[in-house]
Amino acid sequence: MSSSSAEHAVVDLIRAKRDGHTLSADQITWLINAYTDGTVAEEQMSAMAMAIFFNGLDPAELHTWTTAMIETGIRLDFSSLPRPTTDKHSTGGVGDKITLPLAPLVAACGAAVPQLSGRGLGHTGGTLDKLESIPGWRASLSNEEVMAQLTEVGAVVCAAGSGLAPADKKLYALRDVTATVESIPLIASSIMSKKIAEGTGALVLDVKVGSGAFMKTEHDARELAKTLVDIGKRAGVHTVALMTRMDVPLGRTVGNALEVAESVEVLAGGGPADVVELTVALAREMLAGAGIEADPAEALASGRAMDVWQAMIRAQGGDPTAPLPKAAHTEQLRAETDGVVTELDALAVGLAAWRLGAGRARKEDPVQAGAGVEIHARPGDRVRVGDPLLTLHTDTPDRFAAALADLDGGIAIGETAPKERPVVLERIS
Amino acid sequence: MSSSSAEHAVVDLIRAKRDGHTLSADQITWLINAYTDGTVAEEQMSAMAMAIFFNGLDPAELHTWTTAMIETGIRLDFSSLPRPTTDKHSTGGVGDKITLPLAPLVAACGAAVPQLSGRGLGHTGGTLDKLESIPGWRASLSNEEVMAQLTEVGAVVCAAGSGLAPADKKLYALRDVTATVESIPLIASSIMSKKIAEGTGALVLDVKVGSGAFMKTEHDARELAKTLVDIGKRAGVHTVALMTRMDVPLGRTVGNALEVAESVEVLAGGGPADVVELTVALAREMLAGAGIEADPAEALASGRAMDVWQAMIRAQGGDPTAPLPKAAHTEQLRAETDGVVTELDALAVGLAAWRLGAGRARKEDPVQAGAGVEIHARPGDRVRVGDPLLTLHTDTPDRFAAALADLDGGIAIGETAPKERPVVLERIS
Repeated sequence: MSSSSAEHAVVDLIRAKRDGHTLSADQITWLINAYTDGTVAEEQMSAMAMAIFFNGLDPAELHTWTTAMIETGIRLDFSSLPRPTTDKHSTGGVGDKITLPLAPLVAACGAAVPQLSGRGLGHTGGTLDKLESIPGWRASLSNEEVMAQLTEVGAVVCAAGSGLAPADKKLYALRDVTATVESIPLIASSIMSKKIAEGTGALVLDVKVGSGAFMKTEHDARELAKTLVDIGKRAGVHTVALMTRMDVPLGRTVGNALEVAESVEVLAGGGPADVVELTVALAREMLAGAGIEADPAEALASGRAMDVWQAMIRAQGGDPTAPLPKAAHTEQLRAETDGVVTELDALAVGLAAWRLGAGRARKEDPVQAGAGVEIHARPGDRVRVGDPLLTLHTDTPDRFAAALADLDGGIAIGETAPKERPVVLERIS
Repeated sequence: MSSSSAEHAVVDLIRAKRDGHTLSADQITWLINAYTDGTVAEEQMSAMAMAIFFNGLDPAELHTWTTAMIETGIRLDFSSLPRPTTDKHSTGGVGDKITLPLAPLVAACGAAVPQLSGRGLGHTGGTLDKLESIPGWRASLSNEEVMAQLTEVGAVVCAAGSGLAPADKKLYALRDVTATVESIPLIASSIMSKKIAEGTGALVLDVKVGSGAFMKTEHDARELAKTLVDIGKRAGVHTVALMTRMDVPLGRTVGNALEVAESVEVLAGGGPADVVELTVALAREMLAGAGIEADPAEALASGRAMDVWQAMIRAQGGDPTAPLPKAAHTEQLRAETDGVVTELDALAVGLAAWRLGAGRARKEDPVQAGAGVEIHARPGDRVRVGDPLLTLHTDTPDRFAAALADLDGGIAIGETAPKERPVVLERIS
């Protein structure tokens, strides 16, 4: 902690943000670059992040902040592709397997979907973990492989390379250990820096709200959605957001292989109504953003989406017809009374699945392909004493007790069915 | 930034403070110890400090915080001395040489004054720098030498050893580079951890307010004073605070040797009225805190305070009769109009003195013993065109221009004398 002129400058910037002032574009660009190259120390950036937690970043600051993070790395360019690109990002929910049917569905309608994902951390799981339960499938592709697959298949879901927004990677690791994750501008710039660097022309954001989501209230989810959309538009990406329910898990499965199986059901024309509804809604937005007129419901019904799914899995070494892994042990949770399910708390189910081995607590932890929770009765379903409510799956049966403890109080049976609510609550554009 | 259990714990504590919750005594004690031993990383403590900047620490939290910082080091014990101990701390002002006449004065009245000081940084100067302008005087004493001098002379002004509140030393260095200095609870715990560790039985705080002080408004100064007094009382130290004016420099000199000479004038029964007034007011409080009934004005008039001063300087190797260093160059600022001085801004004079070489910008910078500003006309004094207002002293005449620029607008001459205000504005106990 010597007193170089750079440190004096960053102290002034931290103080300005702390005291509620606006930072100039030059100051923000300098800060992000100086942090990335180590001139600005971790302890200075964490103080800045905490000041931003309290005082925010205005839309112009946030645009510069995001752009500066993108410019610390490479930005992919798909302009030579014969199809327009469009992508979706979800803020994370329990049972949120939507990317799996959605990417091939949108590709089947004529768009290119370059979905570069991160690993899942915490109870909401990760798309790459789900796909890795398919025998042979690999997440890592070179940029050339991504380009070839987008040209030939139209959809790719793979691990984001380390070259995209390295400033965000460093800043996210810092925020994680300094209690500065929960800041809407910092969340929004983190998401958008990666998605914009990914090079998509259009983007649909699925902003989850409810117990199983990062955003617990509609107010916060709406603010995040508006912030994300504003950043995208300022960066020249066609961006809309859907605010969607996450008080109940999506569909009837939570877990890696379990969710792949359910996704394949959707692609085969079946699957739970809420998963189909959200997949089609997001597909319409993605296609509209790309300027493509097509009916995703038809592409699903015709089997064309399933064809793209199989091609997409095969292109990354996977066997779409191979049996999926199953967990070695199961245990059922049964109804203790007659009635109608009035509540199935997304957070409780998400934590239970995570505890059973479907998710990871730390980056380096492995996940179990077969672990998770199967849902037999959702809110509104009638049950009788002894009917199965949930089946828990794990390779490590000593985890059942902890998973059951997470579920305690998360399921309620009453006399009156709860009011039906749509999955999509609001559209922000 | 691995995810050890300790880091998970500190993230929870940062989040709690960030969200406005109160930390328990156990949590605070753990945090301070874990920060001192390196378990809690710098970037985590800076995020915590910024959260405290916004959400504060309540009196009970602050008591634990301060106590925990003290307990990371040694606490001196003067209970074996034949006299009660009493000390003063000033939050720093321009021309604030009060410690120099005050410590021997209070010792002359029967108390022991263990004044362990830090180095000055910035425009307000440091007591050790002032005393070091006396030929031969040394600031570093062992704890045994401090004890012997307190027994034989009754007053010691020396450098605080590194063993006092090491947590504060580490935290202060961090706050300095992360824009988290300006937090009343953090300022108060920093001051009080060192003063309580120093082992004094009674403490008087001189909390400055005005342009030349750290606290610019009476509101902030009063809050700091109350916070300091509360911490002291909870730690069992008899503590009072005086809120005093710092819109105009104290006395007629700003600079190291210049201020020593003025202090000796006060000890000889002369000196500027405001310096005498504040010295006697603080002495009365220090003596009352130590339970000693004595009249400091009488001790000053009788020459007994001067005797202790000379003994105190000699005990630390200094020659109190040696000529003081003088700067090689002087330049005068003269009145450009007839009238009465209406303003002499403490900050402008402090910055000019600092620029001339009286203070340091970095810990490792040297100071000039003879540099500074001599004040010929204070607010209320009548002047005629060409009368000297200030004499600037420096060994490095290329600094005159910058010092004059600092003074630009800092002195005003008008038609009506400003209203006289007392030096002591308020007593907080």
